[in-house]
Amino acid sequence: GQSYELAILPGDGIGNEVMPEALRVLDAVGAKHGIRFRYRNFDWNCETYKITGRMMPEDGLDRLRDHDSILLGAVGWPGVPDHISLWGLLLPIRRAFDQYVNLRPVRLLPGVTPPVRDKAPGDIDFWVVRENTEGEYSQLGGRQGEGTENEMVLQTAAFTRRGTDRILRYAFELARRLGKPHVTSATKSNGIYYSMPYWDERFAAIAAEYPDVRVDQDHIDILCARFVMSPERFDVVVASNLFGDILSDLGPGVTGTIGVAPSGNINPERVHPSTFEPVHGSAPDIAGKGIANPIGQIWSAALMLDHLGEAEAGADVVAAIESVLSDDSAPRTPDLGGTASTEDLGKAVAAAV
Amino acid sequence: GQSYELAILPGDGIGNEVMPEALRVLDAVGAKHGIRFRYRNFDWNCETYKITGRMMPEDGLDRLRDHDSILLGAVGWPGVPDHISLWGLLLPIRRAFDQYVNLRPVRLLPGVTPPVRDKAPGDIDFWVVRENTEGEYSQLGGRQGEGTENEMVLQTAAFTRRGTDRILRYAFELARRLGKPHVTSATKSNGIYYSMPYWDERFAAIAAEYPDVRVDQDHIDILCARFVMSPERFDVVVASNLFGDILSDLGPGVTGTIGVAPSGNINPERVHPSTFEPVHGSAPDIAGKGIANPIGQIWSAALMLDHLGEAEAGADVVAAIESVLSDDSAPRTPDLGGTASTEDLGKAVAAAV
Ligand SMILES: CC(C)[C@H](C(=O)O)[C@@H](O)C(=O)O
Ligand SMILES: CC(C)[C@H](C(=O)O)[C@@H](O)C(=O)O
Repeated sequence: GQSYELAILPGDGIGNEVMPEALRVLDAVGAKHGIRFRYRNFDWNCETYKITGRMMPEDGLDRLRDHDSILLGAVGWPGVPDHISLWGLLLPIRRAFDQYVNLRPVRLLPGVTPPVRDKAPGDIDFWVVRENTEGEYSQLGGRQGEGTENEMVLQTAAFTRRGTDRILRYAFELARRLGKPHVTSATKSNGIYYSMPYWDERFAAIAAEYPDVRVDQDHIDILCARFVMSPERFDVVVASNLFGDILSDLGPGVTGTIGVAPSGNINPERVHPSTFEPVHGSAPDIAGKGIANPIGQIWSAALMLDHLGEAEAGADVVAAIESVLSDDSAPRTPDLGGTASTEDLGKAVAAAV
Repeated sequence: GQSYELAILPGDGIGNEVMPEALRVLDAVGAKHGIRFRYRNFDWNCETYKITGRMMPEDGLDRLRDHDSILLGAVGWPGVPDHISLWGLLLPIRRAFDQYVNLRPVRLLPGVTPPVRDKAPGDIDFWVVRENTEGEYSQLGGRQGEGTENEMVLQTAAFTRRGTDRILRYAFELARRLGKPHVTSATKSNGIYYSMPYWDERFAAIAAEYPDVRVDQDHIDILCARFVMSPERFDVVVASNLFGDILSDLGPGVTGTIGVAPSGNINPERVHPSTFEPVHGSAPDIAGKGIANPIGQIWSAALMLDHLGEAEAGADVVAAIESVLSDDSAPRTPDLGGTASTEDLGKAVAAAV
């Protein structure tokens, strides 16, 4: 059978609690499909930062490079500013490995009551494709007149033809692959003067290569409102780094799945490893209690399986998650209204596989 | 009694249909409170642009300057690119008159079924305070390598100390004035490297001047999700130009009031006139049919009355809107599930005043 070398970065807080459950489920699905996973653990996090002054060793990226994929828990902890923890670990990985696609499902799951009314599983089922390496998340900019009344900060977003075209193409390819030939572009060309009209221009150019795919475009303000008012209208939504970030949290917010949503940071050409991680953070408030919901981490492992070409195994994991969630007698962690532990829920999903 | 000179800019599409209803209601509430309104009409819109090549005359801003307030309908029409119609009329007015506050209520209204479940009028009732003159909506930037593979577009957001501090202070003052001493700041300092950490820094500095006001801060991605999951937690939300734009559409999306939400573009010092306009656009799909819902325009007039210091008259208009909406036998336009005309609904609100 196939064998994969995985870099495991549990990170901070509940990352360390949910990760073992994802590995448990991977082992179970691997046994079923004759796939072997080898895990190498990396303990880089805010704790090691406090000791070493670095979020990862100087050769950290090189040490990750030779793995088939990276499975990450959560990064961030009170006392370490985000722009250190994230720009010292999470964001360099996304960029060094050219993980230019951030992919997140927005799906209403059985057994989860969403905050919106009158929707059933199947009604909401789409993907947000977010540009993940350039755009509004940049280190271009600076401050002038520090500490004076004239103080001023500039922050520059960069949109390259290459970076824009490839994320748009990914979205169109995904729509075809899913058999849902419909792509919605998030824009704000009525207010943001240079970058968003350019985004629209490239969207039109790439759309012309996919005449079989229906297109829509919405300004980000009304698009966010539509995520709430009519989420059933979407199939694939493509967006810049910032807009995609917003939409891929809002979507799971609408479906009530923000605590369990997964995300893939993908290098589609597989020249570099991709990273899979839950949308939730390190959750300092519940860390150490063993009650975190591991489904986001497990679902992230399922996305990883898809990316590795193990689509059947990936589908098995998603089906196991759905069957556990829709089974009233299955264990539920406190966020789902139950009293089960992280481990209980992980074991239930592994058993369902 | 008091008398006010108002500049009336119906603009495009349904702007021309809803505006007369707002004036009808203003006349009614004026008669009740002994206030006189004088209206000067300006026909600047996309139609005049097609003839004159300008969205407004060269001395347009000067011609508006001497009014007590500006009441605007909607700007934009198919065939005229947004960056012409908006940057040629709407945005120059906001900037020339230093309307640095964009203020929008997010309120669950009686008689309106929101897309979120288990919420009743009173549960959701807060204000979004958006910076309205700088930040991400800028004309700083440009394009290099046009038409080549190396093409690249830069877009720079500018945050000044002055611009940041004054919007934050406005939010804290508003929270005090409302007797709801709680302000939530929208940030994204974990991903946007220079501007958002600066925003956080100034938020902390201004918050220190208001020790009686409780503060929260959320990254824009999770904040959007929280607007859907727990909208009752907010009182005053303060945000940059782009984040505020998103939140002030998303909020009314959550309450089901996006078609009727108002907005104020305010120069708090009243050195310059302020502009009041509905959140909805010119609605080319229904324009000319006389069925547009005029409540957004009428509610905008109510916000204007507040700003002019006519708080009682403003409250009367809001109460009239609420009483018409909660009266099952009152006329309803098609968007509210009825068959009434714009005029029917406008007359009903005027009568309720
Ligand atoms: C039309 C557009 C430029 C405008 C904005 O984003 O400011 C609108 O969306 C608004 O919110 O008033
Ligand atoms: C932690 C943060 C930098 C990150 C982002 O915004 O990219 C997170 O919100 C995400 O969406 O993965």
